[in-house]
Amino acid sequence: MDFQSYFPIWNKLTASQQERILGSLMERKISKGTVIHNGSMDCTGLLLVKSGQLRAYILSDEGREITLYRLFDRDMCLFSASCIMRSIQFEVTIETEKDTELWIIPAEIYQSIMEESAPVSNYTNELMATRFSDVMWLMEQVMWKSLDKRVAAFLLEEMSIEGTDQLKITHETIANHLGSHREVITRMLRYFQNEGMVKLSRGMIEITDAEKLEELNDM
Amino acid sequence: MDFQSYFPIWNKLTASQQERILGSLMERKISKGTVIHNGSMDCTGLLLVKSGQLRAYILSDEGREITLYRLFDRDMCLFSASCIMRSIQFEVTIETEKDTELWIIPAEIYQSIMEESAPVSNYTNELMATRFSDVMWLMEQVMWKSLDKRVAAFLLEEMSIEGTDQLKITHETIANHLGSHREVITRMLRYFQNEGMVKLSRGMIEITDAEKLEELNDM
Repeated sequence: MDFQSYFPIWNKLTASQQERILGSLMERKISKGTVIHNGSMDCTGLLLVKSGQLRAYILSDEGREITLYRLFDRDMCLFSASCIMRSIQFEVTIETEKDTELWIIPAEIYQSIMEESAPVSNYTNELMATRFSDVMWLMEQVMWKSLDKRVAAFLLEEMSIEGTDQLKITHETIANHLGSHREVITRMLRYFQNEGMVKLSRGMIEITDAEKLEELNDM
Repeated sequence: MDFQSYFPIWNKLTASQQERILGSLMERKISKGTVIHNGSMDCTGLLLVKSGQLRAYILSDEGREITLYRLFDRDMCLFSASCIMRSIQFEVTIETEKDTELWIIPAEIYQSIMEESAPVSNYTNELMATRFSDVMWLMEQVMWKSLDKRVAAFLLEEMSIEGTDQLKITHETIANHLGSHREVITRMLRYFQNEGMVKLSRGMIEITDAEKLEELNDM
């Protein structure tokens, strides 16, 4: 087990704190497309991603979604343990976007260590500030940026994450990432196709002019 | 000076930490309508409101605004000292909405105490989680709630803060709170007036049917 090399402040823990974590740590392999935490579930614990990809999103009463941020290898998920701070008054849902291996630190263990350790508490502060920055970035996108630019940015991000210009993704999924509706995304993608930026086929979007998408995004 | 009774974790500080804060603390009286912090300014320090009202907002490149949250007596403003955490990668502007008395704790003093003190660091965590919750609430409003409900909610909030149903506020100011345009707000308020919920006059909005506004907001 190499949890120690993945947990960034391992060396700032006391021997007793290290023991408490190792003694309670759980390792899990979770298939793609699994909801591993949602607001109404119990406090799942802190998740440390060994490999894979997670998506954190919020849901409206009508079932609409918008992606808040994604987590990759070595990222730590704090809001799956939101019970450790009473001031966290919102609910996020977390699902695996790829087959994922991760460690779970039980919430009560982490909380008790955070209460006594300035390094752990300060690390938690930085984690929260990182997610806060992600959400503020999203707020700026949603408030000031038109949907065409947001779709362009999303396609470019997917291309970079997947390492291919052939994206296996549905219009519905894109709508759920961006907090939009499938019909609106379909219309936008057809416009992109007419402009020569993408080529659409069943369950697939091929990016044919990434440079033009970049230009649209930067405009 | 009664800073001690306003600062919620005063008793959890060591004598030396208390001395460092008292020795560097500044007290200020600031008139209504003053920008006291913006992203491009230096790290102002942590603000503790003695009395008055602050507004934190973000600005688009085109000068549009949206209010993130407001701070009242005894509230602490963390993002005026965003330099204390390197992961805070966003900029907020803070202005006084009323004549305000506040204390400023210099950023470097707070930061050095936070680094060594688990209670101060955990308190900072709770502060950030509170603001994060405010912003997540706003995100849900912006994403899932129509503008008529948001205007209704804003008028009711103002009525509660000001303790009167005669609000001295311009349509432009409401637009800046809600991230909208003046013309759009004017149209909405006229609709409210036709429905008998408000009465508009120069520089003033009188709330004539708060119950109906509540109903609209709850729908």
